[in-house]
Amino acid sequence: MSSALPWDQYSNQLQLDKLLNAQHLQSNAAGFPAHDEMLFIQFHQIYELWFKQILFELDDIQMRFSREKMLESDMQPILTYLNRIVLIFKQMEGMIDVLETMPPQSFVDFREYLGTASGFQSMQFRLIETRLGLERSKRLCVFHGAFDDNLKNESKEQIRSSEERPSLFRQLEAWLGRTPFVQLGQYKFWQEYRDAVHRMFDDRTQAIMATLHGESLAKELEAIERGRDKFDGIFDENKHTVAIENGQWRLSLPALQAALFITIYRSEPILQAPYQLLTALVDVDELLARWRFRHALMVQRMIGMSSGTGGSSGYEYLMNTVRSHRIFTDLFALSSYLIPTKSIPALPPEVSHKMNYIYTTG
Amino acid sequence: MSSALPWDQYSNQLQLDKLLNAQHLQSNAAGFPAHDEMLFIQFHQIYELWFKQILFELDDIQMRFSREKMLESDMQPILTYLNRIVLIFKQMEGMIDVLETMPPQSFVDFREYLGTASGFQSMQFRLIETRLGLERSKRLCVFHGAFDDNLKNESKEQIRSSEERPSLFRQLEAWLGRTPFVQLGQYKFWQEYRDAVHRMFDDRTQAIMATLHGESLAKELEAIERGRDKFDGIFDENKHTVAIENGQWRLSLPALQAALFITIYRSEPILQAPYQLLTALVDVDELLARWRFRHALMVQRMIGMSSGTGGSSGYEYLMNTVRSHRIFTDLFALSSYLIPTKSIPALPPEVSHKMNYIYTTG
Amino acid sequence: MSSALPWDQYSNQLQLDKLLNAQHLQSNAAGFPAHDEMLFIQFHQIYELWFKQILFELDDIQMRFSREKMLESDMQPILTYLNRIVLIFKQMEGMIDVLETMPPQSFVDFREYLGTASGFQSMQFRLIETRLGLERSKRLCVFHGAFDDNLKNESKEQIRSSEERPSLFRQLEAWLGRTPFVQLGQYKFWQEYRDAVHRMFDDRTQAIMATLHGESLAKELEAIERGRDKFDGIFDENKHTVAIENGQWRLSLPALQAALFITIYRSEPILQAPYQLLTALVDVDELLARWRFRHALMVQRMIGMSSGTGGSSGYEYLMNTVRSHRIFTDLFALSSYLIPTKSIPALPPEVSHKMNYIYTTG
Amino acid sequence: MSSALPWDQYSNQLQLDKLLNAQHLQSNAAGFPAHDEMLFIQFHQIYELWFKQILFELDDIQMRFSREKMLESDMQPILTYLNRIVLIFKQMEGMIDVLETMPPQSFVDFREYLGTASGFQSMQFRLIETRLGLERSKRLCVFHGAFDDNLKNESKEQIRSSEERPSLFRQLEAWLGRTPFVQLGQYKFWQEYRDAVHRMFDDRTQAIMATLHGESLAKELEAIERGRDKFDGIFDENKHTVAIENGQWRLSLPALQAALFITIYRSEPILQAPYQLLTALVDVDELLARWRFRHALMVQRMIGMSSGTGGSSGYEYLMNTVRSHRIFTDLFALSSYLIPTKSIPALPPEVSHKMNYIYTTG
Repeated sequence: MSSALPWDQYSNQLQLDKLLNAQHLQSNAAGFPAHDEMLFIQFHQIYELWFKQILFELDDIQMRFSREKMLESDMQPILTYLNRIVLIFKQMEGMIDVLETMPPQSFVDFREYLGTASGFQSMQFRLIETRLGLERSKRLCVFHGAFDDNLKNESKEQIRSSEERPSLFRQLEAWLGRTPFVQLGQYKFWQEYRDAVHRMFDDRTQAIMATLHGESLAKELEAIERGRDKFDGIFDENKHTVAIENGQWRLSLPALQAALFITIYRSEPILQAPYQLLTALVDVDELLARWRFRHALMVQRMIGMSSGTGGSSGYEYLMNTVRSHRIFTDLFALSSYLIPTKSIPALPPEVSHKMNYIYTTG
Repeated sequence: MSSALPWDQYSNQLQLDKLLNAQHLQSNAAGFPAHDEMLFIQFHQIYELWFKQILFELDDIQMRFSREKMLESDMQPILTYLNRIVLIFKQMEGMIDVLETMPPQSFVDFREYLGTASGFQSMQFRLIETRLGLERSKRLCVFHGAFDDNLKNESKEQIRSSEERPSLFRQLEAWLGRTPFVQLGQYKFWQEYRDAVHRMFDDRTQAIMATLHGESLAKELEAIERGRDKFDGIFDENKHTVAIENGQWRLSLPALQAALFITIYRSEPILQAPYQLLTALVDVDELLARWRFRHALMVQRMIGMSSGTGGSSGYEYLMNTVRSHRIFTDLFALSSYLIPTKSIPALPPEVSHKMNYIYTTG
Repeated sequence: MSSALPWDQYSNQLQLDKLLNAQHLQSNAAGFPAHDEMLFIQFHQIYELWFKQILFELDDIQMRFSREKMLESDMQPILTYLNRIVLIFKQMEGMIDVLETMPPQSFVDFREYLGTASGFQSMQFRLIETRLGLERSKRLCVFHGAFDDNLKNESKEQIRSSEERPSLFRQLEAWLGRTPFVQLGQYKFWQEYRDAVHRMFDDRTQAIMATLHGESLAKELEAIERGRDKFDGIFDENKHTVAIENGQWRLSLPALQAALFITIYRSEPILQAPYQLLTALVDVDELLARWRFRHALMVQRMIGMSSGTGGSSGYEYLMNTVRSHRIFTDLFALSSYLIPTKSIPALPPEVSHKMNYIYTTG
Repeated sequence: MSSALPWDQYSNQLQLDKLLNAQHLQSNAAGFPAHDEMLFIQFHQIYELWFKQILFELDDIQMRFSREKMLESDMQPILTYLNRIVLIFKQMEGMIDVLETMPPQSFVDFREYLGTASGFQSMQFRLIETRLGLERSKRLCVFHGAFDDNLKNESKEQIRSSEERPSLFRQLEAWLGRTPFVQLGQYKFWQEYRDAVHRMFDDRTQAIMATLHGESLAKELEAIERGRDKFDGIFDENKHTVAIENGQWRLSLPALQAALFITIYRSEPILQAPYQLLTALVDVDELLARWRFRHALMVQRMIGMSSGTGGSSGYEYLMNTVRSHRIFTDLFALSSYLIPTKSIPALPPEVSHKMNYIYTTG
């Protein structure tokens, strides 16, 4: 070690001999060198390195979620790594700025030598989707085939095997389902919350009836009725079951209740990190959607909207995944079921007490 | 002037007394102060300042386009201001990071005091859309009404009057239609290009027939046929007319030909700035779409996807505008009609000559 | 409420009549209209709105820190608002992209009408610096005068009065100084840590002496000696006192010990939020420095490095504040005093126990 | 080729087998696996890929500059690639967000296994600096040694050999020096400009003497005198020669005159692209400085400011390069020598004429 030069160390540790010799331009091989193919190759190589990093972080996060009981100290690395994944997606989104310096004409000059390779046919990317919680049945077809039709057998098996293990979405659901405070001793959050919601609507009805008349009264009453209906969608177990079957909800009712509880009482010491977790997953979902969207726009800029053919175009497929391939939308939907703080019931002291640190309370 | 203190000057020029006293929280007035309403107000105020700036830049850009003959020297400020608009949209997109630090619960706490105000109901924003080229007939309804139903009469008139003047889209179309080089003396770009495209397909057909057989040959021949069909969509005037009627294209055929000419021969001195102009308009369109998309995601995060009601939700409306309210998509679509450089015919010397600087050539 | 049009509400709540009529170009008044002055004005107005927002967040954060005992539930809003401040600074940094679309020649065209106004002469910005913890004695002179010489009396008083209240830096120091775990019952963190550091150096010395000889041994031993010396700077109370006097450290020794404790044992439930707090303050400091740096580069681009005069130029002043006007550098410096996890002593169970939630432990 | 699956193509073209097997953690090898070393390795690998891309773009740009006479059509790719370099630096700056999710404690856990490797010891990065125009004599020492002391012989030679070829800075200088319009026939820009500057100062003097008296008159007259002195620094050839010797200027006087001419008359057709070139180089310089600055801040966050030793710390070195290792500062400095448009002499028609396109004028 002592005799090695720093540069040797740097170069060896990063394996620069491999790394910087892994760019061979297909257009060169074909005899029509296209300058911008270098950018295209390195751009996708950087994506694959980021994908590897995301999978590496997911390994650690999912290992912690898979414990019979997650340790409180696990929250610190889980949040750190989830936020890192968010920032990596942000980088991957921003990198498209660089690729878009390529004139579409330059892309045409090497496109024919590429075949159909694209960042979205990456096996690592498919793994990321699966492990976050995108289910096979929810995936759009790619050119009439299943999303993994074109992968080689080894890769298909890797994806199949990751489908057999719980995704982060299902791990989250199970973890939320175990939240103890939603029902602790005498305290029943769901009953309290339902009462509070009804009280809120009753108060509004009274206020309206005292001040409005005729058509405007009718209109407001109708709005309140719609509000009650909306809440019934989660208060009524049967409606929720139907919504699960319809694909309107994915989270089980207990998980959903816990998520709402955490959102509302997020300042309680024991809920601060869980609330950050829910927010980080919303961020992951948002960034994944943003990245897909920018990717679709970039494709549209580079190859237009080719069409007239039976098959959907690459652009159409990508743009459709923006809305179809989302994972944690239930956590966004929760916001529809929040009520003003002034209508929220206070926690009973004995529940609140247990959420504090041992030191704090003496 | 000499007696004024620098601070006075700074403060007076920026009219800070007005500016910093223009934030009154509705939740305060209602007796339930909500901390995050301040952010909400200032966020939208900053948006309105940026909108004003965009309109100010458009004033100058459109004035130059409205000249009977645009001056070559106009391209410099036009490009500067268009790129500025792009960067402003980028800022407005990025600002959403700040707003998303607001927990959805905090939004619920002042939402009822706001009415239905939203950045997308801004009169200035509607003007920007109209002036860029979004036509009334292409606009989605907002809650069953026209997009400007809720504006006050004075604002409606401002929008109507801006609809009567040519939008930037129509100015661009007219300007492209005047491009002289597409047909200059004996030189007819369109005929040359059509020949080159057919030659390219003929060569491919020959190559395929020499190497493939049976089903794979049939499949490749079919692909080539689809390619020819696609190009016919612009080579055949009647098909283009139908496409205009269908809303698949908006640009007139002469404008489209000129845009393709500029894209292909973009290195010619006289085409360098026009190509930058087309690229800047693609950027404007992309950034506007990205901003709409982030805005929609932010709304989804803050208020979920409320639904079940007859009307479409705010989120749905916003998300639909992402794909429906685009303006310069024809410039994206052009990329479908590019062919490899090796198949592109060289410009005749007498045409190329006229595109150069007087100094350069003598 | 029901009769008001949404647009009216939107426009009234945002006070758009004031806001959008607060831009008067000095160059217009002087008879030489300069297009880009509009951008310059609105750019600084947006800065002032962001400044107001930062001060508004600081009000809340500092109020919570000023409680005799900060509530555990306070950490949630404090972290939310600090991260918001970080993101606001990031926006203010990014906005410079827009300003830099202004050619320096355009700036010259209205500069003479501005006097000496600049974002860094803003009273609100001075308040932000003071309230975060920049002390008067640490401030660089602006053109030979104190930083507030040019402010009007009312503003000077506001700054003076904010100087008399504890800054966030001093509030942090006091809060860190009250951390109970650094010394809890029999447990003395500082002694444990000092022993661990010495053990680490002893082990290294042994390992080196067993494997190296001659000059390379001497060199390594010297490096270990320097390491021990460095740690003495915090282990030896007298040295730390001298360092405080020299301005090398600002944080008191107890605060510094607590910060190190939090950094090392950051996964313990009760330390997770405090560690996020320290990280957020490092982020605030970094972003403030980055913003100053970009501001200085932008000034250099716009006005060059004028000089030759007795006074330092605007650029020089700004660039010097980048390094001189930092506030939380002690939190960066802490990293020099970390040792590998394998050398860190485990917490005694009775200490660790108290850091957990009541619920968790039974 | 026809039988290969798309995935195979994708994976083969990107050489994923090499790329995704080039990460070996030193901490694993040492028996103390540190999770965050993976991020550290991949982060630097991505940097090296970006460096390769920058060098690849510089190859093309510098090849075009090295022609005896640059073609007008060269400006299009040169500007495209320079702007790409700017955006790559922006990505590299932004990527630090990801690295800063690593707690400094995590860095300590694998730092001892790394030796002294750092992104700034990269051979490719040194080449970028040299090729842009950083001269050996201007480089700061790294730990008392020359910046390339620690590189292996092969790398030293590569740098030496690139030092022997003209840097982009020197290519720019030569190209500017050849600008014909600065002196064209009877027209002598420099004389015109000098006269205009003097006229401007004379007018100001008159105006002041008519309105001010006593001390305030004296003060303003002195300011005008300083202004004249400043301009003498470029009008007086001897002073400029001294400034070159002092290192205050690097650009030759003819190059500097041409750069000023381009800046002032940037709307003339033939000057539009050259002005964009100067702006792009200012952007390159700014982004390089910003990236260095963020890198220095990140190092400070990760390892603090270790010190007390004879040698300067890594942080100090990096922070000093921010100001010392700049390349195109002369282009920033030019802004000091601009005067208001109303004082700028119009171009003679025969000069202006030659700057236009052949087509335009007939």
